[in-house]
Amino acid sequence: MLPAEAMSKGLELARELFETIGRDSFDGSGFARAAYGPGEELAHDRVAAAAAALGMRIERDAARNTWMTLEGEDRDGPPLVIGSHLDAVPNGGNYDGLAGVLAGLACAAAFRHAAVEPIRSLSVLAIRAEESAWFGAQHVGSRALLGTLSDGVLDTARRVDSGRTLREHMIEAGADMVPIGQGRPLRDPAGIAAFLELHIEQGPVLTRADAPLGIVTGIRGNRRCRRIRCQGESGHSGTLERADRHDAVLAVCDLITTMEAFWDEVAADGEDLVMTFGKLSTNAATHSVTTVPGEVELSFDARSHSPDVLAHVENRLHAEMDRVAASRGVAFDHDPFTGDPPIAMNAGMRKLLERGSTQLGIPAISISSGAGHDAGDFAMAGVPSAMIFVRSENGSHNPDEHMAFNDFAEGVRLVSWFVEEFQQTAGPW
Amino acid sequence: MLPAEAMSKGLELARELFETIGRDSFDGSGFARAAYGPGEELAHDRVAAAAAALGMRIERDAARNTWMTLEGEDRDGPPLVIGSHLDAVPNGGNYDGLAGVLAGLACAAAFRHAAVEPIRSLSVLAIRAEESAWFGAQHVGSRALLGTLSDGVLDTARRVDSGRTLREHMIEAGADMVPIGQGRPLRDPAGIAAFLELHIEQGPVLTRADAPLGIVTGIRGNRRCRRIRCQGESGHSGTLERADRHDAVLAVCDLITTMEAFWDEVAADGEDLVMTFGKLSTNAATHSVTTVPGEVELSFDARSHSPDVLAHVENRLHAEMDRVAASRGVAFDHDPFTGDPPIAMNAGMRKLLERGSTQLGIPAISISSGAGHDAGDFAMAGVPSAMIFVRSENGSHNPDEHMAFNDFAEGVRLVSWFVEEFQQTAGPW
Repeated sequence: MLPAEAMSKGLELARELFETIGRDSFDGSGFARAAYGPGEELAHDRVAAAAAALGMRIERDAARNTWMTLEGEDRDGPPLVIGSHLDAVPNGGNYDGLAGVLAGLACAAAFRHAAVEPIRSLSVLAIRAEESAWFGAQHVGSRALLGTLSDGVLDTARRVDSGRTLREHMIEAGADMVPIGQGRPLRDPAGIAAFLELHIEQGPVLTRADAPLGIVTGIRGNRRCRRIRCQGESGHSGTLERADRHDAVLAVCDLITTMEAFWDEVAADGEDLVMTFGKLSTNAATHSVTTVPGEVELSFDARSHSPDVLAHVENRLHAEMDRVAASRGVAFDHDPFTGDPPIAMNAGMRKLLERGSTQLGIPAISISSGAGHDAGDFAMAGVPSAMIFVRSENGSHNPDEHMAFNDFAEGVRLVSWFVEEFQQTAGPW
Repeated sequence: MLPAEAMSKGLELARELFETIGRDSFDGSGFARAAYGPGEELAHDRVAAAAAALGMRIERDAARNTWMTLEGEDRDGPPLVIGSHLDAVPNGGNYDGLAGVLAGLACAAAFRHAAVEPIRSLSVLAIRAEESAWFGAQHVGSRALLGTLSDGVLDTARRVDSGRTLREHMIEAGADMVPIGQGRPLRDPAGIAAFLELHIEQGPVLTRADAPLGIVTGIRGNRRCRRIRCQGESGHSGTLERADRHDAVLAVCDLITTMEAFWDEVAADGEDLVMTFGKLSTNAATHSVTTVPGEVELSFDARSHSPDVLAHVENRLHAEMDRVAASRGVAFDHDPFTGDPPIAMNAGMRKLLERGSTQLGIPAISISSGAGHDAGDFAMAGVPSAMIFVRSENGSHNPDEHMAFNDFAEGVRLVSWFVEEFQQTAGPW
């Protein structure tokens, strides 16, 4: 165990960085840290400066992820990586992402202040562009790093605020597009001993369980379509008789209501599923109170821990679109469906974290993650990966999201215990 | 019967005015004749100039409706009024409204060219601001004229393009707001012998019946709400479990689907009803593919020939909003519901029009009007009123709406026959 005074100094550094990065990226309404934008850049610079002051080695990879390494006795061995992202959704909060990077830095600082040199090197990794809200593409930084960024996204994904492509924004941020365009990993995943991510929970489970920490069992997979369009036929709301209508609103409500009934069936079978039609709109350029709506656009997002359920829900959605199209004389078209498979966290690392929480006397429960995280990408690339959730309030993805500093401190204690213990524990994971 | 040569000259004038008004108000995409806007003003000026050239007396009432009068032998007796409106919906067509005014002018011109002086005076009335698409208030010109414009609308209704109030636009167009603000009729309805409106059908019924003309039996009433808001709670689409969701999209789809099932019941009972949710949207400022939608806005429009059905459907909508709110933990609020009662056209005038179509050998069927028209307001104010529909193609409220000129000519023949016959026929209607 690191001495309490060293831990306090590490936490003090984190508190200071929460405050200064938060203050300097606050735009009066939310925390403005657009993926590959100036607020995210500012956060990378601040954590890099703090890490450099601790004597850590600073590197930026080709995707402009920031690596901050406290070298261990075994300089050439694969490092343990602790990281998370520094971007925030539009009008977002201060903790989502930033907490994981600052937990790593607090831990590294505690090692430094305790003058303890770890056996393995410890890399704190600040990742770029995790939030899909910016480019419609998620986990860009970690996927570029792992060589799993999907083809074409560089030139098709456009940032919601600027309308410019991911490639343009990455180049502007100083990225080297050659290896990224070739889909080459920027670091060999086999050269990373393990990946640990601390993250705000973003849900009410830990609060209800009265536990400051959660040890993540796995991450839900998803099937998603950003834009489904239902094309009916518009007409005068008074003169067009029912038999002549091809009302896109009625068609889409039929589709959604039927999918909700399907969700009931899945839930009754005890299967895991959440389903969201987050965007839904008639065509604002042509709709009116007295016009039969001829066009509706909607989005679709389903998440589950079961790959079978995900396949089933997508098939059912297509079948229901066909049924509604045939019965109502409307037509559906859509953007490509995308998805990530469900992924389990590393069992050995979970067990070690459980042992740590017991030993430290920190209440921690097993919890599943509904949201995707960079840790899922590391796990899929074969890196042993685990996540710690920290209790939060007021949801997430909004400026009011909150994490009590004491809860964060419990998270840092568990991370630090894990780092010390990890040194002693033989792999493979 | 007026001589064929005189009728031809009347039709020639109408054709010329369709072309010149259409050409000069076309904005490259649709016919731009905003209520109390420059395109509508242009149309009023053109028809007034043509009427003046025929020696008709031109007056503008306080609401800037244009009265064009061919004086009869009985100068002081109540005139027969033939009219319709000259505004068009945004991106609208050339025939909706304009056809009725030009039919009146063609008829008056035919009388002039035949050098026949009618017994009663014949007023062609060009009405302002009929389309609710502009101010959210319908039939503004005829209601101002009849003293039935609803309280408060002058300062609350704002034009969709400018955001400025109805009062501002009326003043700009030269209206005298004193009598309008007091709700005084600008003409005593008892001083109008009858009101006849020719109008594009806006539906497929006449085409299917292979009849150029329809004689309108009545106008559907309506119940309408421009904005209903469903307030749920937004959250992360991956982390918020089903039991914790208050999804505004699922709530509104439940509401609409249930109202559609209610429509089935009403239709099964043989009752007349059409129902439209023309505008529907999640909040574009806050929605995203991965956010449980917390807010949806929608509009509601129901039409029926039965006042009982209208009362029933509105009551049911309120009951279903209460049910959905209670079962899903969402809340509904809404703008005031507005409505017009269903109204029958004058039986004696209908009979006369039927006799005329038979006598002239013009196929004409009885038809009900789904849309509201100025004629409904005259009828409600106690003026004997009737309508002739002319067959149309490509729907209405769009630049492609079309009326074959031959069909229009049949309408003008029937109008002219009616005017001649009306002279001879004793009231009351």
